[in-house]
Amino acid sequence: MINVAVFGYGTVGSGTVEVIMDNNDVISKNIGDRIDVKAILDLRDFPGDKYESRIVHDVDVIVNDPEIDIICETMGGVGAAYKFTKMALEAGKSVCTSNKELVALHGPELLKIAADHNCSYKFEASVGGGIPIIRPLQDALTAEVIQSVCGIVNGTTNYMLTKMDKEGAEFEDVLKEAQANGYAEADPTADIEGHDACRKIAILSSLVFGKTIRSEEIPTEGITAISARDMKYAKQLGRKIKLLARYESKDGKRYAMVAPFLLTPENPLYFVDDVFNAIKVTGNMLGEAMFYGRGAGKLATASAVVGDVVECAKNKGKNIPCDWTDEVVTLKDKELSSRRFFVRVGAEVACEAKEAFPIEEEVKVGFYDEFAFVTKVMSENDFEEKKSKLGAGVINYIRMED
Amino acid sequence: MINVAVFGYGTVGSGTVEVIMDNNDVISKNIGDRIDVKAILDLRDFPGDKYESRIVHDVDVIVNDPEIDIICETMGGVGAAYKFTKMALEAGKSVCTSNKELVALHGPELLKIAADHNCSYKFEASVGGGIPIIRPLQDALTAEVIQSVCGIVNGTTNYMLTKMDKEGAEFEDVLKEAQANGYAEADPTADIEGHDACRKIAILSSLVFGKTIRSEEIPTEGITAISARDMKYAKQLGRKIKLLARYESKDGKRYAMVAPFLLTPENPLYFVDDVFNAIKVTGNMLGEAMFYGRGAGKLATASAVVGDVVECAKNKGKNIPCDWTDEVVTLKDKELSSRRFFVRVGAEVACEAKEAFPIEEEVKVGFYDEFAFVTKVMSENDFEEKKSKLGAGVINYIRMED
Repeated sequence: MINVAVFGYGTVGSGTVEVIMDNNDVISKNIGDRIDVKAILDLRDFPGDKYESRIVHDVDVIVNDPEIDIICETMGGVGAAYKFTKMALEAGKSVCTSNKELVALHGPELLKIAADHNCSYKFEASVGGGIPIIRPLQDALTAEVIQSVCGIVNGTTNYMLTKMDKEGAEFEDVLKEAQANGYAEADPTADIEGHDACRKIAILSSLVFGKTIRSEEIPTEGITAISARDMKYAKQLGRKIKLLARYESKDGKRYAMVAPFLLTPENPLYFVDDVFNAIKVTGNMLGEAMFYGRGAGKLATASAVVGDVVECAKNKGKNIPCDWTDEVVTLKDKELSSRRFFVRVGAEVACEAKEAFPIEEEVKVGFYDEFAFVTKVMSENDFEEKKSKLGAGVINYIRMED
Repeated sequence: MINVAVFGYGTVGSGTVEVIMDNNDVISKNIGDRIDVKAILDLRDFPGDKYESRIVHDVDVIVNDPEIDIICETMGGVGAAYKFTKMALEAGKSVCTSNKELVALHGPELLKIAADHNCSYKFEASVGGGIPIIRPLQDALTAEVIQSVCGIVNGTTNYMLTKMDKEGAEFEDVLKEAQANGYAEADPTADIEGHDACRKIAILSSLVFGKTIRSEEIPTEGITAISARDMKYAKQLGRKIKLLARYESKDGKRYAMVAPFLLTPENPLYFVDDVFNAIKVTGNMLGEAMFYGRGAGKLATASAVVGDVVECAKNKGKNIPCDWTDEVVTLKDKELSSRRFFVRVGAEVACEAKEAFPIEEEVKVGFYDEFAFVTKVMSENDFEEKKSKLGAGVINYIRMED
């Protein structure tokens, strides 16, 4: 019998219990042993809950229980979750988590503690919800030099951008609606400012590189500046605006960023709408592969947590190695990153803009108070410098993907 | 040192050598040991080839070489490839293959021989070329009850259908062009009649079920009946025609088939064009996940072969288990399969058609010599029966996906 404890009985935690209980037969068959949830750690009581009797308030009870083999950490945050994860790993219990914040911040340290205690730290659910992405990257694409990882990894913002695109609505209105129907949180900062996507690409790029790429170092722009007007321009250009989290590696130099991009239908990410996520991986032999599915949601995310539980159960008493050291790598190669930019400036600075930027194409959709154009290919640094010349005259800009 | 031998120095075989040599550093790092190609088995000589000195004509030399750990079988076919694979496995050498025909026909037997000799038989490259699909199904989606697997798994036919859709060309012309530029073989039967897709869905559905679903039992229709007119009707319906290979499981009953389907843009497979492949997996917790990429091609396929080599190298001397027994399962649940059908009949039998079929919608694109319509939901058996009443009056029919 494999006994599991779940830390945190919120959305993903209760989903994890549900997956283990409802799919018990198939999971037990895949493990080769029965599986059960022995304890659920939460500060709250859950009177009347089906699993009320398994609720535990004291983490020590679980950590000191020799019958408990594996922990599902679905608490979130980097406080108690960090402390409890360490305690569990030090007690030789594998931990499977959906907590991207903790993985991005302390991944290598927790992986090392796991290796030192013959157990494992697994986090497939931390990126892309139910979509298998970490395991394919680590176990399947092992013959590849990974050249880039580029994805739509935040469902909330993709839902909002899709709504804005289809309905011509303004950002603020779509945000209110997303909050009303549960697609965005009361405090939506982590989603709309790109921090959530940033943590996820920090995890993926660290795994690809085998060293630590810190999320604080990744230039990150959210979608708060995107307006209904931008959507009109995007349509005129035959493109869609998507928030991309990307990592690229070329000639030993690396770059990562999170920002909205204008995509053409030639890019398979163009078709990823609503709350769906997709991660495109480019390898030097494979070309492009893409992994698509529900990037969030109670049961999809829980399914990925339990998939990790199955692997830990099959490797009971052993460490599943993960090549990610705490050596921090600086992403200093911003100047490598060159592309075209779509830019909107106030009509009053149109002449200055024409002088400052190498303009490839003017874009007109009938707004006479502004001047919009696509630049020729420019480096990030060059663009930044020219943009700063125009100061507040720049209304908005969005990067062009190819 | 891990020494590999490659059986068959054709397209995928030479790609396999190229991947191992060109990506040697990353592959060695992932294995944790150096890797080399010690021998290449082929009947031909390759004077002037970079690896000419490694060509071997006698399989015994390789099978009896204790220094060779792993075989890449990229010969194709079910004759010599079958015999040589058995010899290699019996000698305790793991075999990694792209040979879907052999896997579909003898998979469970070869898996058992591998298990009995502490080595492994791996075939990620047999479905979806470079796209990781078998490993995610087996190792990642282990908390799921898999309800369906549905994919575009043949690049040649998808390329042809995309051409017909975009250019309004006829089947025969597109086939000739595909043959001329190497996207279709001189004898295109296996692709255009759906046999290749059938073998692939036989492999995937057997793996999902853990027992053997024989490709001969899977109802298979190719794309030879699809015409430029069908493409016009598809456009009118807002759909695209795609050759789908599908497996469904519901209430303990199972069904598999290969046939052209009319897809709406709500289906992510709608956007999979040209030579790309994609496989959509539906689980009871996860919902839909899709795996997308190059389903064929020398290096992409070779990359999947070598990814399997890495796993075998990491498990040297051990069997990597695979739950697929030779117990044959009959797919007797055709009557479970119900859907709407798009049907074209000659104008002279329009009245009979209206009487025979429950018609939901007539479809008109300006051909007055025929009558086209969409039926209400019907079972396969019911449709078959009604269609046979009209005999040769039925010009063509295509299944509607949802």
